[in-house]
Amino acid sequence: MDIKLTTGTTLQSYKDESLLEAFKKNGVYLVSSCGGKGICGKCRIRIIKGKTKVVSTGKLEPHDLNSGITLACQTFPEENLVVDIPKESRLVIGEKIVLSKSGDLLDLINSLNASISPMVRQITLILPPPSIEDNISDLERLKRSLEEKDLIGMRFVHEFVSSLANSLRDYDWKVTLGYTVGHDIVYVLPAYIKKERYGLAVDIGTTTIVVYLVNLLNGLLIDVGSTYNSQMRYGDDVITRIVYATESGGLNELRDTVVTDINDLSSTLLERHQIKKEDIESVVIAGNTTMTHIFWGLNPAYIREEPYVPTVNFFPRWMAETANLRANPRAPVFSLPCIASYVGGDIVAGVLASKMHRKEEIALFMDIGTNGEIVIGNKEWLVTAACSAGPCFEGSGIRHGMRATEGAIESVNIDPVTFEPKLGVIGGVNAIGICGSGMIDAIAEMFLKGVIDQKGKFNKELQTERIREGFDGLEFIFFKNNTRKIVLTEVDIENILRAKAAIYAGVSLLLKEVGIGFDAIDRVYIAGGFGNYIDIDKAIILGMLPDIPKEKFSFIGNACVTGAYLCLLSKELRQEAGVIASKMTYIELSVSRGFMEEYMSALFLPHTHMRLFPSVKKMLSHKNLLKARFKEQT
Amino acid sequence: MDIKLTTGTTLQSYKDESLLEAFKKNGVYLVSSCGGKGICGKCRIRIIKGKTKVVSTGKLEPHDLNSGITLACQTFPEENLVVDIPKESRLVIGEKIVLSKSGDLLDLINSLNASISPMVRQITLILPPPSIEDNISDLERLKRSLEEKDLIGMRFVHEFVSSLANSLRDYDWKVTLGYTVGHDIVYVLPAYIKKERYGLAVDIGTTTIVVYLVNLLNGLLIDVGSTYNSQMRYGDDVITRIVYATESGGLNELRDTVVTDINDLSSTLLERHQIKKEDIESVVIAGNTTMTHIFWGLNPAYIREEPYVPTVNFFPRWMAETANLRANPRAPVFSLPCIASYVGGDIVAGVLASKMHRKEEIALFMDIGTNGEIVIGNKEWLVTAACSAGPCFEGSGIRHGMRATEGAIESVNIDPVTFEPKLGVIGGVNAIGICGSGMIDAIAEMFLKGVIDQKGKFNKELQTERIREGFDGLEFIFFKNNTRKIVLTEVDIENILRAKAAIYAGVSLLLKEVGIGFDAIDRVYIAGGFGNYIDIDKAIILGMLPDIPKEKFSFIGNACVTGAYLCLLSKELRQEAGVIASKMTYIELSVSRGFMEEYMSALFLPHTHMRLFPSVKKMLSHKNLLKARFKEQT
Repeated sequence: MDIKLTTGTTLQSYKDESLLEAFKKNGVYLVSSCGGKGICGKCRIRIIKGKTKVVSTGKLEPHDLNSGITLACQTFPEENLVVDIPKESRLVIGEKIVLSKSGDLLDLINSLNASISPMVRQITLILPPPSIEDNISDLERLKRSLEEKDLIGMRFVHEFVSSLANSLRDYDWKVTLGYTVGHDIVYVLPAYIKKERYGLAVDIGTTTIVVYLVNLLNGLLIDVGSTYNSQMRYGDDVITRIVYATESGGLNELRDTVVTDINDLSSTLLERHQIKKEDIESVVIAGNTTMTHIFWGLNPAYIREEPYVPTVNFFPRWMAETANLRANPRAPVFSLPCIASYVGGDIVAGVLASKMHRKEEIALFMDIGTNGEIVIGNKEWLVTAACSAGPCFEGSGIRHGMRATEGAIESVNIDPVTFEPKLGVIGGVNAIGICGSGMIDAIAEMFLKGVIDQKGKFNKELQTERIREGFDGLEFIFFKNNTRKIVLTEVDIENILRAKAAIYAGVSLLLKEVGIGFDAIDRVYIAGGFGNYIDIDKAIILGMLPDIPKEKFSFIGNACVTGAYLCLLSKELRQEAGVIASKMTYIELSVSRGFMEEYMSALFLPHTHMRLFPSVKKMLSHKNLLKARFKEQT
Repeated sequence: MDIKLTTGTTLQSYKDESLLEAFKKNGVYLVSSCGGKGICGKCRIRIIKGKTKVVSTGKLEPHDLNSGITLACQTFPEENLVVDIPKESRLVIGEKIVLSKSGDLLDLINSLNASISPMVRQITLILPPPSIEDNISDLERLKRSLEEKDLIGMRFVHEFVSSLANSLRDYDWKVTLGYTVGHDIVYVLPAYIKKERYGLAVDIGTTTIVVYLVNLLNGLLIDVGSTYNSQMRYGDDVITRIVYATESGGLNELRDTVVTDINDLSSTLLERHQIKKEDIESVVIAGNTTMTHIFWGLNPAYIREEPYVPTVNFFPRWMAETANLRANPRAPVFSLPCIASYVGGDIVAGVLASKMHRKEEIALFMDIGTNGEIVIGNKEWLVTAACSAGPCFEGSGIRHGMRATEGAIESVNIDPVTFEPKLGVIGGVNAIGICGSGMIDAIAEMFLKGVIDQKGKFNKELQTERIREGFDGLEFIFFKNNTRKIVLTEVDIENILRAKAAIYAGVSLLLKEVGIGFDAIDRVYIAGGFGNYIDIDKAIILGMLPDIPKEKFSFIGNACVTGAYLCLLSKELRQEAGVIASKMTYIELSVSRGFMEEYMSALFLPHTHMRLFPSVKKMLSHKNLLKARFKEQT
């Protein structure tokens, strides 16, 4: 059957395949946080014409249904259709990503006292040409010269030897070899041609992929590419990906997807700077444990099953061709080592970039992404945990949640008298959803202005039409026009409180494990793209961040790709990443007896124990609100 | 156009492709010693019906032409044809190959005091299953156990790690690993299943390929397969192969050809013994330098060009999958090291099998195959040379020369009075050609009976119709019936004398290089399939073998595959092969000043210097023939 989109495109589809599937096959990707299970309610489309079979309407409301809205994953065509895909349902490429500047990166590498020492080393050999008196084989001739320079035990891969006879003669017996520390030959070049040397540092995020193109001779960041991880079409979080990977052919499909993303990004960069793929001589990747496993095609199933065991934490240095990366086929690929199933190479990279592992002061490192990993420590010790916060701050599991793209409510102010909200929307357009920083703002504001209580429940006695009974119980309407209402429901708020509680409880528990209090924390590093948009004050009111002086907080942006960049350039830092990973003690929160207690206490706004949030307490008492709405429970 | 064979088959052909090419494309292979250049005159076919364009008739005789005989490589179809391919023109598979017996091989390995220590080692690990308290990754768990057994620095290939998670769980954390000395993992198996362990020892001859299937647990030779090297369809000797390899796509074609031969042989063996290809865990190959290069897909062009440099002599241990061999993809493949462009791994294997490198006594090792390699030495020193004898003893370059298959004249006796020859023909059938041992016999007999003189020229005054004027001058008719005459021409005899002179001169020169005489030789090892059929006495009369006591000669059969077998089983012997190759001094005869002189002197029957052949001298004088036919020249 034909499906005609209002954009003009016509696609083929079949009776037993959902419209979401049909779109995916035809390269039209919708937001589908739950991976097509009818739960998240994000793949909304409007049937303009034609008959469909709808299996479930999920959380769609009567006025949605009346206007022809249906969930693509739950809808099957019964005849030719005309379909409209609203903007908010499309998987939008082009997130705002705060990127490091080349100068900053060079300052960073200098501040670490690390030499520029890429994975591939070079050596130039001037070989005596063969003669009747000296007619040993080409390879033995090469080995003899290498031995004279104390390079022994080199491993000669077949591809290298296959082309050796011609290379040596073409280059008149004067060659430069590129080789790895593991003694594999990567390339052979004429000795007197100055070769440009490039590398890629890749951050494989669950949501976003970032590629740095780096000049390995001087460490300069030449260019940057970024895109959504196309695996998003299979679901937002690592769990949905793992589940998909365990289905037949799923792992390879996910692997191809992410590798294609990286190759597409790097192709664009290489073309723009007229660099040949053969000149990409090394690659560093950093991702969480699941992403790293999928990138290498390793079964991630056991990551999810107790006792949560990855296949590998310290990855061997396989070659670019093994990964199917567009680079010199023999380029070594360094994978940032992982710590455990839910603390991966992205966190090791972040810690490396933060330099917290080199300092006396005790620091807290937080990555509030889809997972919520935290690290506490200094140069003596490091402990880490994954909070399983879930991807709600990225929009998943929140009725009108979305990523921080155009149309997302990113800031909220609520009038204390009329309770009318004043919204900041990305791009200055009509709101189509609410992103993470908007959620934090909204809840903090609602709490401060008495719209919700400490448990996140709406104050039913409030005189405002903004609060109404919705599908999931009460909800607050932030935006409304003819086609769309944007709300936060009590269920949404509950989800956000759970996420923030998980993060806060994780930090509390780690501190208890090492026997120190919040006051011992000298610095808080907030990593991740989302981190940059957080209003610290509001996040403290929410009880997500600990109530410590604001000047202790540092936003370090995408520390993951920065760490990958550092490892691309320096041998010492690659080793240091290994040391960080080996040294870090992983605490499994899900089996820690104290965690549930901490978590339950943190489900309140900002916390059951108000004494832990003195600045919030003061703010509320100053506003005379404390007494009215809050009773300290201990 | 259609070509109908008298066997019933019908083939397709095109106007601009020779019948030889057309046959080859359709899998019908003809003897084609010169590789299709119209020189050797071996690809004789008979056109029964239809018009052809004949470019050249080569050495065909009028009666051949009259009966419709033409050279397939020089004949192009102009319409549909009916063609008969005489038996002698077909490339016959199934040479008689003298094979070692399993018991002899085990005796040999015992006599060498070598332990059975294959390339793949095994270790059994009982891993503690993961728990929440001990949830390091699968690979780190494995490494930890390996380290406890002092195995560090193991290299984990991607394929191994890809299947690791499932293997460990399927095998309940009790595994046996197969790994190489180079620390690559080859396989992982359940610990408590007793695995059969097999290997292949392969002799890649220019003419013949032999595969031994060996049980690596006890060293037993399970079975043997052998076939002609299908590269023969591209020419008989290494030079025609090298030339073909340098043509576009030629190298890959030759490589595929030989690998397919080996795989076909091993498939048959595996099927017969119900062995899975995955259980072939290591392979040893031995061949001359060109064959070894082609097997690995390495450009052999520079082997042929001064200063005669191979790409590799000591081959890295690449994997079976790199070679496209049908075996465990990660099975290591050991290539017997080569010495120089024309002394290869087959000779190193042969020396190893002869044990001459371990003894006090000075031995001469001769491989009279297509090339004619010789080694002289003992446990202190070894010198070697390649004689460029050419493949005439295998039938190439001899008008009616053929390999030792059915229909070949293998022995000759000439009546001293009537000069009628008495022939021994393989298979007792009508003669269709003459093989190497037949040539030696024939020339020795003709010389002894006065049919030819010391220079190999026919005695024109002899009263016999057996001698007649032919295409290339005078010739001796050994066999004649209605369809075929089998002759040796003066040109043939000249070629054979050149070959034997090259061999003898090589030995002389090597002896001079080391400053000893023929009498210093305690033992002569004659290796190679052909060697087994040589009549020592006749070969001495010919002047091919030195005139030393007959009891000093030992036939050691296919010493090449024996050496490969030894290397398959024993680490010490693989190392010993390396020592042999390193230690052997290669003398390049083509640039040695003394060689041409030695060669010229050896062109006579048996030699210019009759004193070097006392037994022949005595035989001739006893027969009162010496005076009549021979004047000592010094």
